Amino acid sequence: MTTILFASPTDWPAYAGPLPAALASAGIGARIVQPGEVAPEAVDYIVYAPSSSLQDFTPYTGAKAVLNLWAGVERITGNTTLTQPLCRMVDPGLTEGMVEWVTGHTLRHHLNLDRHIVNPSHVWDQTCTPLARERPVAMLGMGELGRACTRALTALNFPVTGWSRTPKDIPGIPVLHDEDGLEQVLRQAEIVVTLLPKTPETENLLDARRLGWLPRGAVILNPGRGPLIDDEALLAALDAGQVGHATLDVFRIEPLPAAHPFWSHPKVTVTPHIAADTRPSSASNVIAENIRRGEAGEPFLHQVDRARGY
Amino acid sequence: MTTILFASPTDWPAYAGPLPAALASAGIGARIVQPGEVAPEAVDYIVYAPSSSLQDFTPYTGAKAVLNLWAGVERITGNTTLTQPLCRMVDPGLTEGMVEWVTGHTLRHHLNLDRHIVNPSHVWDQTCTPLARERPVAMLGMGELGRACTRALTALNFPVTGWSRTPKDIPGIPVLHDEDGLEQVLRQAEIVVTLLPKTPETENLLDARRLGWLPRGAVILNPGRGPLIDDEALLAALDAGQVGHATLDVFRIEPLPAAHPFWSHPKVTVTPHIAADTRPSSASNVIAENIRRGEAGEPFLHQVDRARGY
Repeated sequence: MTTILFASPTDWPAYAGPLPAALASAGIGARIVQPGEVAPEAVDYIVYAPSSSLQDFTPYTGAKAVLNLWAGVERITGNTTLTQPLCRMVDPGLTEGMVEWVTGHTLRHHLNLDRHIVNPSHVWDQTCTPLARERPVAMLGMGELGRACTRALTALNFPVTGWSRTPKDIPGIPVLHDEDGLEQVLRQAEIVVTLLPKTPETENLLDARRLGWLPRGAVILNPGRGPLIDDEALLAALDAGQVGHATLDVFRIEPLPAAHPFWSHPKVTVTPHIAADTRPSSASNVIAENIRRGEAGEPFLHQVDRARGY
Repeated sequence: MTTILFASPTDWPAYAGPLPAALASAGIGARIVQPGEVAPEAVDYIVYAPSSSLQDFTPYTGAKAVLNLWAGVERITGNTTLTQPLCRMVDPGLTEGMVEWVTGHTLRHHLNLDRHIVNPSHVWDQTCTPLARERPVAMLGMGELGRACTRALTALNFPVTGWSRTPKDIPGIPVLHDEDGLEQVLRQAEIVVTLLPKTPETENLLDARRLGWLPRGAVILNPGRGPLIDDEALLAALDAGQVGHATLDVFRIEPLPAAHPFWSHPKVTVTPHIAADTRPSSASNVIAENIRRGEAGEPFLHQVDRARGY
């Protein structure tokens, strides 16, 4: 019998049905416990979320892995009490949601839908937008999510160029890296999607200098991490017309404070950190599969490399 | 030397570059003339648009085909002086544009983007929308355009059910027909796309009775033909909440008259007949290919069946 600590009480109602079902499907005899219910050393696996109150992992001497319910792990990787393997959530439902958000907002800006959605003067303007094949997109970050979004956008004919911090070879998609590559990607991008993890190297990746590389009027979509963009530089670039619009799903402080200028800026669309939501049914399958792997001595899925921070 | 009458002077500036280039690429020695420039009997092919002043085709005794610049042919099929083969434009650029409009507005409604685009109270509402795989779409019309849109939407996981007036077998896509099939398609559709040609049978296809088959709050996208929908019935269904929103690109009278209630209805988005625009560069290739076929005695591409009216 495997003992699983579900360390995020606020998430439990959503998982109370799907997680036992997924464990049963995977053939795992398991007991799911809540914080405080058993002695820490009796716990085999910890299901974790950033909202968990659990901060000191030292007493969990028998835990074989910490399984995060979120894709982002920056709020836990710096925890020195965590010595167990840590796995990110790569939820197919989360990826699908992200692809839908990115594709939806890319098409929205590509087709300039806002002019029809808000058209108080009832303007009948038949000016044609370019075809997707004529609208270059930069995908900053070519991990699971960036690659999935790239596949969806290229299927719609958008020419996508990727950028990642380390060289990557992805069939059919040009992927550049390093600072020169970033300049090359940004100089031709009419729509930029930022899907990098937050690490010390990616903080303020889009600063005033790099925003200046974009063609005038380019659109930025940030469903990745708030700190990837220098907020002040972005506001200045929007005011100057260098950036045409920014649609932002993630922020340095969430919920975005009422006084933040993003809320009322006419060239900013705020979405409330909804681009990628973990879906309990599909996420439960991932948790169950990782527990099955742990019990079978197989390598975990999506284990975090702490040296790289993701 | 093939003589081509370009019968739409308003379109000529856009085609003055691409059409000669496409003819040259296809190896066709051609002279392109404007209306009145040569005797009608000297004309081998007529490039036509609904805006052409040409109405009497009788004198064009040598014309081997009339090549329409538009996909829609209802304004010419009833012309009894037209005895030559008539070809619709099936422009890859037009199809791409239609796929982008349909996919963009489908995602817009699926993700409920409008609540973020227009959010004057700065509401941070993290309510999650379903995944595309949970959002059934009805595609009414499974011709070139309907099939292309279906491919794009199914690639994004939307479960699409097609409906066509005649039985169609399309691998991987359920396609229903007849009145019972229409009821079945509409009863499960949260988003309905109308891409049927305008024929006597499709006029007012979506009337009060059939709009009543939809699940309450379903969204309608009409990039096909204005008369496919009974305007009064649609307005009543919107006011009653039976239809949640209608995004309309085509109308019985265009431009949509200033006094039309669609303009100011809060649940209607008007787009100005831009979903599918013929693109001169790709359309010129289609014209050139059909002239090549005509000269080689091969069957024309996209020839209209006048008995069916499309």
